[in-house]
Amino acid sequence: MNDDIRDGEIAGFYAIIPAGGAGTRLWPLSRRSRPKFLASLSPHEPTLIQQTWNRLEPLTGSQRVVVVTGSAHAHTVAEQLPQLKPGSLVVEPSPRDSMAAIGLAAAIIERRDPTAIVGSFAADHVIPDASRFRAAVRQSVVAARAGNIVTIGIEPTGPATGFGYIELSESLGLPGAADALRVMSFKEKPDTATAAAYLATGRYRWNAGMFIAPATLLLDQLRLHHPDLANRLRELAARWDEPDRDALLGAQWDELEKIAIDHAVAEPSAAAGVVACVPGDFRWSDIGDWDSWGSFSAIGPHDALQPQAGNELEPITIESPNAVIIAEADTQVVVVGIPDAVIVHDGDALLVTTRGQSQRVKEAVDELKRRGQDHLL
Amino acid sequence: MNDDIRDGEIAGFYAIIPAGGAGTRLWPLSRRSRPKFLASLSPHEPTLIQQTWNRLEPLTGSQRVVVVTGSAHAHTVAEQLPQLKPGSLVVEPSPRDSMAAIGLAAAIIERRDPTAIVGSFAADHVIPDASRFRAAVRQSVVAARAGNIVTIGIEPTGPATGFGYIELSESLGLPGAADALRVMSFKEKPDTATAAAYLATGRYRWNAGMFIAPATLLLDQLRLHHPDLANRLRELAARWDEPDRDALLGAQWDELEKIAIDHAVAEPSAAAGVVACVPGDFRWSDIGDWDSWGSFSAIGPHDALQPQAGNELEPITIESPNAVIIAEADTQVVVVGIPDAVIVHDGDALLVTTRGQSQRVKEAVDELKRRGQDHLL
Repeated sequence: MNDDIRDGEIAGFYAIIPAGGAGTRLWPLSRRSRPKFLASLSPHEPTLIQQTWNRLEPLTGSQRVVVVTGSAHAHTVAEQLPQLKPGSLVVEPSPRDSMAAIGLAAAIIERRDPTAIVGSFAADHVIPDASRFRAAVRQSVVAARAGNIVTIGIEPTGPATGFGYIELSESLGLPGAADALRVMSFKEKPDTATAAAYLATGRYRWNAGMFIAPATLLLDQLRLHHPDLANRLRELAARWDEPDRDALLGAQWDELEKIAIDHAVAEPSAAAGVVACVPGDFRWSDIGDWDSWGSFSAIGPHDALQPQAGNELEPITIESPNAVIIAEADTQVVVVGIPDAVIVHDGDALLVTTRGQSQRVKEAVDELKRRGQDHLL
Repeated sequence: MNDDIRDGEIAGFYAIIPAGGAGTRLWPLSRRSRPKFLASLSPHEPTLIQQTWNRLEPLTGSQRVVVVTGSAHAHTVAEQLPQLKPGSLVVEPSPRDSMAAIGLAAAIIERRDPTAIVGSFAADHVIPDASRFRAAVRQSVVAARAGNIVTIGIEPTGPATGFGYIELSESLGLPGAADALRVMSFKEKPDTATAAAYLATGRYRWNAGMFIAPATLLLDQLRLHHPDLANRLRELAARWDEPDRDALLGAQWDELEKIAIDHAVAEPSAAAGVVACVPGDFRWSDIGDWDSWGSFSAIGPHDALQPQAGNELEPITIESPNAVIIAEADTQVVVVGIPDAVIVHDGDALLVTTRGQSQRVKEAVDELKRRGQDHLL
């Protein structure tokens, strides 16, 4: 794959960063006005979207990254990513799920470069070892050039029920993409027993929603199964640089089919035999709750959460191992006798739970909605 | 005891309120600058010292209450008790334990009224049913007039190890003090097995440190066992209204023996057969930790702690029964999956523990001392 590398960049490779999602399980740090991707794991660290940019920029340079986000966050995204070209920030009038967001970006890139390979990487994932990630992306681009929609499959660390799974088949035997395998199918989030059965075979990977493909192949596969959506996206892209773009987007956007890229393209294309997987041998998390926040903030480059970085008042923890503690810099936190405690104090909100219960934070956010406490969401 | 009652007051009866003690187990609400007796159980309630005053004032009027406190808190005590006569606030230059504090107040009262009956009641105890308390005090005053040092014994609710115990003997058979019994002895804080054995006999009461006695008897008994301390206290009292009082107090105070009233008078006097007990049939707490705070704030007149009084943001508790939650009025507290949680947020400090662990808050305060974080104490 030497011809792909120029100063480390991959010629013709474009990154798409969909930056959306509420992240309600990380309340109160994550709120509507400040979703997870705009937050940092610890005070002196880049935010998650900045880390995503930093991981990809060695492959794309600053010219070949497109970010798709909602209008509420466009300004902050632009502030956090000063290298992002103004024309590379796609602002959704409203959320229409991942296919519309990624598909529009892919269609815009296809217009600029009909041979482009696009890769979609969520703005709120954490990958401590960026160089291993990039090595997997390099193989994925090679496999994509060979006519595949490629997903990077995460090595499961346990029978998780919060992720979809990728069923692998034989090696593609591709030069420059030695690890690439054919994908048999995508599986919905399983129950624990099913997940354990998947793991026992050794042929399953977590689906982290990373898709690398020729833009044209991605949109052509979409057109096979959802022709109206594919045509509308390409039509929007065709007029993207014209003065009536915003009017057109406003008129068309709410008409688009609301569907995830997994259902719209990945699953039917796998059935058609054009999906490949490059296994990713790196630690990864979508920071889905405070438990995984704690796991990923305490290790690797993210070692600063406990004691609180930027806070001279180190928390006092008495018989409370593995606590996740986030507080204002001038607040002395004391926790006594609560192993795995989660304590998050953020302005007008204070959450106390344990790491084992942290998925249930969503229930509290639902209760705030019921009470109409919108200013806290 | 009809001759004792005039408009509900007891003629010749004086209350002494020692207002001291750090209350470190109630950190961070209780601090050096704001000890427990200056705090309220809930925002719209009188403070503990105000409640103590309100309990006693129907018996003494505002003229016969003497408060003893440290110089750091004298100003706030005077603010909280506007009815307190300036001459009735005794300011200790430094803490010399309870005998010096109560003894000096008793000696000052003895000078004003040689037949005075004094009763000592800590400023930081909670007694929801004040009328039952006052009925016990009335009997105690009758028993004191008969030549006894009288203690009000609290009916144990369990084999507590945090209190001393009073061993009872036969009834005194006193008219007007039908419940008064002779005290055999005082017992130090026992272990749980010993406490359980005490309870099984039915002859033991908790020692809440309430002592009612003729001032002269109290000081004469003190002189028997600690003549130097008794003489110095009476000497200070003799010159209390002279211009050199402060100089004398400053010169003498640090010379006084540092001893608790229990050891100085109650125990030796019980051995001498001049101590009586009137059982108190009222709920009582010294609010020694957050667990008892929770128990006493949630019932009786103190029913406002949960949900937070004065706070429109009712806490959200998911599978967290019996939580004790104290927070700033504009903070939304959420607790998930921690039964008996204790969450206390007060300005620059945040405590998270459980009611069963709440005695250990003292360890955290000790750690703050070690770290030199004096501003948090």
